[in-house]
Amino acid sequence: MTDAPADDAAAPSRVTLSFEPAAKSVRVPTGVSVFDAASWNGIAIDSTCGGHGTCKKCGIRVLDGSIPVSRLDVRALGEERVRDGWRLACLATANGDLRIEVPPLTTRPKAATVGVGRQVILRPAVQKRYIELEEPTLTDQRTDVVRVLDAVDDLELRVEPRVLATLGRELRAAQWKVTVVVVDEDLIGIEAGDTTSTAHGIAIDLGTTTVVATLMDITTGTPVAVRSMLNKQQPFGADVISRISATMLDPEALPRLQSLAHETLAELAAEVCEEGGVDPAAVYEVTLAGNATMVQLALGIDPEPLGVAPFIMASASYSGLRATDLGLHLHPSARAAVLPALGAYVGGDIIAGALASGMDRDKRLRLFIDVGTNCEIVVGDGERIMATAAPAGPAFEAASIRNGMRAAPGAIETVAITHDGIKCGVIGEVAPVGLCGSGLVDAVAELVRVGLIDTSGRFLPPESIADARPDLAARFTEVDGERRFELATAVESGGDPVVLTQRDVRELQFAKAAISTGWRLLLEEFGAKESDVQQVLLAGSFGTYLSARSAIRIGLVPALPVLRIVSAGNVAGEGAKMVLLSLPERHGATALLDEIEYMELSDRTDFNDRFVDELAFPSS
Amino acid sequence: MTDAPADDAAAPSRVTLSFEPAAKSVRVPTGVSVFDAASWNGIAIDSTCGGHGTCKKCGIRVLDGSIPVSRLDVRALGEERVRDGWRLACLATANGDLRIEVPPLTTRPKAATVGVGRQVILRPAVQKRYIELEEPTLTDQRTDVVRVLDAVDDLELRVEPRVLATLGRELRAAQWKVTVVVVDEDLIGIEAGDTTSTAHGIAIDLGTTTVVATLMDITTGTPVAVRSMLNKQQPFGADVISRISATMLDPEALPRLQSLAHETLAELAAEVCEEGGVDPAAVYEVTLAGNATMVQLALGIDPEPLGVAPFIMASASYSGLRATDLGLHLHPSARAAVLPALGAYVGGDIIAGALASGMDRDKRLRLFIDVGTNCEIVVGDGERIMATAAPAGPAFEAASIRNGMRAAPGAIETVAITHDGIKCGVIGEVAPVGLCGSGLVDAVAELVRVGLIDTSGRFLPPESIADARPDLAARFTEVDGERRFELATAVESGGDPVVLTQRDVRELQFAKAAISTGWRLLLEEFGAKESDVQQVLLAGSFGTYLSARSAIRIGLVPALPVLRIVSAGNVAGEGAKMVLLSLPERHGATALLDEIEYMELSDRTDFNDRFVDELAFPSS
Repeated sequence: MTDAPADDAAAPSRVTLSFEPAAKSVRVPTGVSVFDAASWNGIAIDSTCGGHGTCKKCGIRVLDGSIPVSRLDVRALGEERVRDGWRLACLATANGDLRIEVPPLTTRPKAATVGVGRQVILRPAVQKRYIELEEPTLTDQRTDVVRVLDAVDDLELRVEPRVLATLGRELRAAQWKVTVVVVDEDLIGIEAGDTTSTAHGIAIDLGTTTVVATLMDITTGTPVAVRSMLNKQQPFGADVISRISATMLDPEALPRLQSLAHETLAELAAEVCEEGGVDPAAVYEVTLAGNATMVQLALGIDPEPLGVAPFIMASASYSGLRATDLGLHLHPSARAAVLPALGAYVGGDIIAGALASGMDRDKRLRLFIDVGTNCEIVVGDGERIMATAAPAGPAFEAASIRNGMRAAPGAIETVAITHDGIKCGVIGEVAPVGLCGSGLVDAVAELVRVGLIDTSGRFLPPESIADARPDLAARFTEVDGERRFELATAVESGGDPVVLTQRDVRELQFAKAAISTGWRLLLEEFGAKESDVQQVLLAGSFGTYLSARSAIRIGLVPALPVLRIVSAGNVAGEGAKMVLLSLPERHGATALLDEIEYMELSDRTDFNDRFVDELAFPSS
Repeated sequence: MTDAPADDAAAPSRVTLSFEPAAKSVRVPTGVSVFDAASWNGIAIDSTCGGHGTCKKCGIRVLDGSIPVSRLDVRALGEERVRDGWRLACLATANGDLRIEVPPLTTRPKAATVGVGRQVILRPAVQKRYIELEEPTLTDQRTDVVRVLDAVDDLELRVEPRVLATLGRELRAAQWKVTVVVVDEDLIGIEAGDTTSTAHGIAIDLGTTTVVATLMDITTGTPVAVRSMLNKQQPFGADVISRISATMLDPEALPRLQSLAHETLAELAAEVCEEGGVDPAAVYEVTLAGNATMVQLALGIDPEPLGVAPFIMASASYSGLRATDLGLHLHPSARAAVLPALGAYVGGDIIAGALASGMDRDKRLRLFIDVGTNCEIVVGDGERIMATAAPAGPAFEAASIRNGMRAAPGAIETVAITHDGIKCGVIGEVAPVGLCGSGLVDAVAELVRVGLIDTSGRFLPPESIADARPDLAARFTEVDGERRFELATAVESGGDPVVLTQRDVRELQFAKAAISTGWRLLLEEFGAKESDVQQVLLAGSFGTYLSARSAIRIGLVPALPVLRIVSAGNVAGEGAKMVLLSLPERHGATALLDEIEYMELSDRTDFNDRFVDELAFPSS
């Protein structure tokens, strides 16, 4: 199956979806469901069944482009509507550009679909209760707070002094008819009259590179607005180790990193509130998924012990946090919940991802791979769940690749070599200026597939190239003793050529070897073979956009049928949404810490040995 | 018994005690035990038995003055030492000026004596534990916080982000040998090495007029330093009602009152730390007793509902408070515990007083009266406990009395009329300039006793005075149609005469009537008669200094043998100390809220009727 025909490999790895009436366009990996694509981008579509086609609520209409009719569409929507272009969004796969009409939300649901087809019952930590109280008298001198608490006595609530400060005045001004706002076990405020129909929270994916915030309507479980931004900590280094090192060299670095994290989060929060038309003071809770370093930096916690063996976290979980602890000024008593971490290198982002992709529940043997400088790998079969972290190194970061760049306009993101020559997909309608991570993997995979790079990772000698592919020979050059392949020539780029160097290939080999050594050892510990794996979920902002075919080709993932390699999307962000919408899921995240067996790679004596074996690319 | 001879009435109502080697002099009510006088003033004397003469630890030596030998002195101290002037401080009564030597503390006690002879087992909320931890390894990757918590796993502790921020660095710098500082269920910090031998807290009596702070050594239960200060909120009015009114008229008043409370507390805390030579950052907890208005103002809680019927508190108790909530900057995570309140007019100060005077335990039928603008009354017999609040009005505040002033130098504090004439005791060795509360009560009581004021409260006609006491006749004058009695003539004062006016007498009658109506109705509800009362405790900064004899004479307290009327001292402050030293006592304070039955006077239809009856002074 790794010998897929070349023209298939040239299928677009991303497609553009336009949603109406929101007039919002997004680019998503090919094969993602329309429902997920909408949800990841803050477009709300009704759904309560977890994408099984049973709730029949997620109907959308194709305006431009085409979606094949799924097995349940006719039963759920009726023949006529299907003829009119209606489809169930959860079963509709985006395999080409689409323009889609999303109907307005209907009834208030009791559940929502988030993550990778996870149905989540709406049981948020944020609760609102409308109460009408009797006025105090000389024979009923209960204190203001007891009068309120007695009216919600099925809850055991704490009340902080800040709330008490204005409680008396507010109760009287509202003539004793108020809505109580509760987060978990804390009464955080009262509001005049009945405001139970609105409640918002923000779910955050605090990545080392990219930070994503989603404003959620907690009463319906639907996204209202989503924004992403580069983490403002970037000047301190692209990866967690550089940022930890910065704090070890300069005592001012930690407070600076903390405030940069806070600035990033505050800007994003302001943006989603603005876009969603929601008063920040009406946002009651924030949930955040991030790796251990990002979380410790955001909380101002010295990260040094995370960076040196034996890699110790200050704490796996944090309770009693407030949004202000993350630099967020929302409701004055807004709470914050941070997803717990399993270890210094299997952080809350991975716990969120495991939760969002159902790694603890799905009965299939599945492998979850979050590709990045540090690559986290989880394996589970619904009975047992194990995790490890592999030090993949900086290959997927732009800096270590000669013409590396982020997935931004001008980046080559797909590469296909056909009989006719080479075809590069470039982000944005601009000339190519560099190579992003998925382009790197594609380029190497294609050169290996057509035999211009051998399985040891070496460019073929110039004479062999001239023999094999005379049409491409001119693209192989040598500068300062290093051989390189021009993905885009100077003519094509309108400037410097965009090249893949021999060293770039080596960087990718190191990363690939670390990752595949990781999942191979993990599968062995789990007692499973590569061929037993029923699904591979590629996660993280990099993994999501990776071509499954190329990943298989270079041996980054198990050699499975390509359909079993699935883009999981921003699962960390989805996990953050899930714990915002559901306390049971939040408890599930904590339970995962006990359930997941962690395998430490850095003290495995066989790691280096296996690593060397894995440096080679699979022979086709 | 109300017909006591005149020369007895002239016995000093206060005495001066000098403690060596502290070189500290204090003035206390006559009859107070030397132990209490020392404790109230920050002088530590060993004691663990609650003043029963059994622990034999509280020996002190009389250097000047005399203390009669008590029934247990010889048995406890031996004949020789008693001859040398040694006495048990708990049984030694101060009936005259004394100079006393206090030996240094010996062993670390497990209990301390505070309040009115209350023995308190040392079980403070503040705990320290010295732990030596194993360093983490790749096979023991417990988080820093779990490593610490595992070492104190008999406690269920929470850890806040602030502590986590530096935990890793501190543990490593201290080479994993640290002392854990715990307050209640919170781990508030770690300290390098073994610091278990030192721990401090501050107990605060936040009075409307006077604020008292006592720095306590929590490891021994002994006071280290005590300071008092006028509440800086005074410019907003002398009593709680004026301060509440201020917040109703001006929205800026509440934040201003809060910051004035904070300034008062911060100054006192700085003073006791300085005097005690204790680093404020090593003070881990603050306990505070205050009336409901003082507490709400200090916490920035709108007090308006306290000031108008039906008199509603925002909350009876406050949990999760920090010292910073009271404006105190001590240990960065120092906690604060505020004594809970029964009602708007039976506040945490009264709960503290009831606790410190054992109103919930003593088997005798006792009446506790805190005399002030608002007079709180508690009755209990160890089985049952009831309380009420009587609106005594401003008679005891300086402002409503013509020559009224605080108990400060120049204030007439005692008045005795003998056959030879009038003798006034003045605070400080200065000429009289005014009249404080105890002087007012003495003056009226003496004039009633000798018949110059009749039982209806009226000055006798001038001709009758000239007949009865020609020696005093010249002191009765009339200005602007109002009759007045010169306690000090212009010659004696060296300026304006210090007078008692007919209106002053009326003010006192109103106060006295409210108070005695209060305790009479309370005793009736309790099912007891006036003569059943076995002890009356006079509390509050005013009540403590009141002459028992005069209080009986004007009918302010039940007509009992004078020895049964006891000055209880600053019981609110003592209660704050008790809850600082003992969690069981703290729980006892909360339990009191359920145990005390509150009787509301303001909706009693018989109150006014009874009040009018009580306006008259008892006939002798």
